[in-house]
Amino acid sequence: MFIIGERINGMFKVVARAIAERDREAIADLARRQVQAGAQALDINTGPTEGDPVEVMRWLVETVQEAVDVPLSIDTPRLPVLEAGLRVARRAPIINSTTGAKDRLDAQLPLAMEHGASLIGLTIDERGIPRNAEARAEIALTIIARAMEAGLPPDRLYLDPIVLPVSAAQDQSAAALAAIGLFRSLSDPPPNIVVGLSNVSQGAKDRGLVNRTYLVMAMAMGVTTAILDPFDRELMAAQRTAGLLLNQEIYAEDYLEAAKPALAGAGGSV
Amino acid sequence: MFIIGERINGMFKVVARAIAERDREAIADLARRQVQAGAQALDINTGPTEGDPVEVMRWLVETVQEAVDVPLSIDTPRLPVLEAGLRVARRAPIINSTTGAKDRLDAQLPLAMEHGASLIGLTIDERGIPRNAEARAEIALTIIARAMEAGLPPDRLYLDPIVLPVSAAQDQSAAALAAIGLFRSLSDPPPNIVVGLSNVSQGAKDRGLVNRTYLVMAMAMGVTTAILDPFDRELMAAQRTAGLLLNQEIYAEDYLEAAKPALAGAGGSV
Repeated sequence: MFIIGERINGMFKVVARAIAERDREAIADLARRQVQAGAQALDINTGPTEGDPVEVMRWLVETVQEAVDVPLSIDTPRLPVLEAGLRVARRAPIINSTTGAKDRLDAQLPLAMEHGASLIGLTIDERGIPRNAEARAEIALTIIARAMEAGLPPDRLYLDPIVLPVSAAQDQSAAALAAIGLFRSLSDPPPNIVVGLSNVSQGAKDRGLVNRTYLVMAMAMGVTTAILDPFDRELMAAQRTAGLLLNQEIYAEDYLEAAKPALAGAGGSV
Repeated sequence: MFIIGERINGMFKVVARAIAERDREAIADLARRQVQAGAQALDINTGPTEGDPVEVMRWLVETVQEAVDVPLSIDTPRLPVLEAGLRVARRAPIINSTTGAKDRLDAQLPLAMEHGASLIGLTIDERGIPRNAEARAEIALTIIARAMEAGLPPDRLYLDPIVLPVSAAQDQSAAALAAIGLFRSLSDPPPNIVVGLSNVSQGAKDRGLVNRTYLVMAMAMGVTTAILDPFDRELMAAQRTAGLLLNQEIYAEDYLEAAKPALAGAGGSV
């Protein structure tokens, strides 16, 4: 499992404050602690910042890079903000995200090629969120085909089944799981598949329980990557245990303790 | 999910003592509390009892039936003990278990027909435990074919992928999960699939974490039934949450609290 830490996002109050005050140490601390907790890459999202988002993204990327040496996922729907992040990224970054919509692919695929970036492709298009797993797989095929045409190596593409809150759209949490199973069969070797995990528990009562249960099920179905909160210890323990039971990590009696320094030290690669 | 409580087993000290002293109330209490905790059927296993196992099985079944009205799973490899349990069972019982071995099927299929029982079929045969998921599916097909010949309705057959301790055979815990996915595709509607859960964590350090992580993954893959410890609250909460995320139970904000009395009152049906 490749883990992308979600905590540097302007939607969190502590991050919004740090951005407003240009508090480098607060951001650096969040970056370091996520990597220590097992994140192998970090998502960077300015959130609804009051300042110039282009300048904020540049500042966030530079600040994080001074603290940790892991790939960054530049998380924004706005092209100028995305470009700002990509331009200052030292390690090959991740574009978060494109979709199956033609204008999005037309804009973001060239950027991925120009910056040697990986690309997260949400399986949604002009028609909105697909109703079921099959419709998601259809859009995934479009994204795969366009990425191949553009010359993006398959291992730099991450398919995202779009996880919605179970409290609002219960059938969609099952549909996204089924979509992961379908995505896995779309290529050999199977494609990278990513979920934005915390979405599933929006509005739910015991968010931690919902998050870790969903992650473990997604891993069984074939997810390879997750954007999540690495500070959630029970989530990280569940993730390690699932990796073990899927024979993706070596069993040792103390695997929970053993996994931690190994992950934190690995630094990650995309 | 159909849940079979595992606690009435002579391997547990409290049960061995209750059997030795013919302590009806201790057994009745275990039966009632398992049903209250969400078990919809109860597994009955004499364990390595000192007394006559035929007489012990009869006593256990009769004692449990005085306390609760749920189906019982008669858990023994010995034919006379099995027959003793089946003969006194009031509700349609479950035979736990047959295998793909010819002599086992020859002996147990007629018993299932005679007693209107359901049948758990372990996907193992004369050659021993299968190496991978495909070999398990091959044995599953043999069991399905023999059950059809005998006239057993498909909904009374439960395929078991054989869960082994991750601490001893790590690749086998992944193989059993993959087998569940294969079993699901063997018939339409998909067959009943059961796991004996606690086996996976034998010899592991944090057994509860391993058990609930494995159950949730097995549910994602299509398991319909589990023999487990209903007293493990975190396990039961994980199971309910997984059912919700798979759209098998209706979402409600208080689903953890809401699910409990509903399950306890349902009584279960096989």
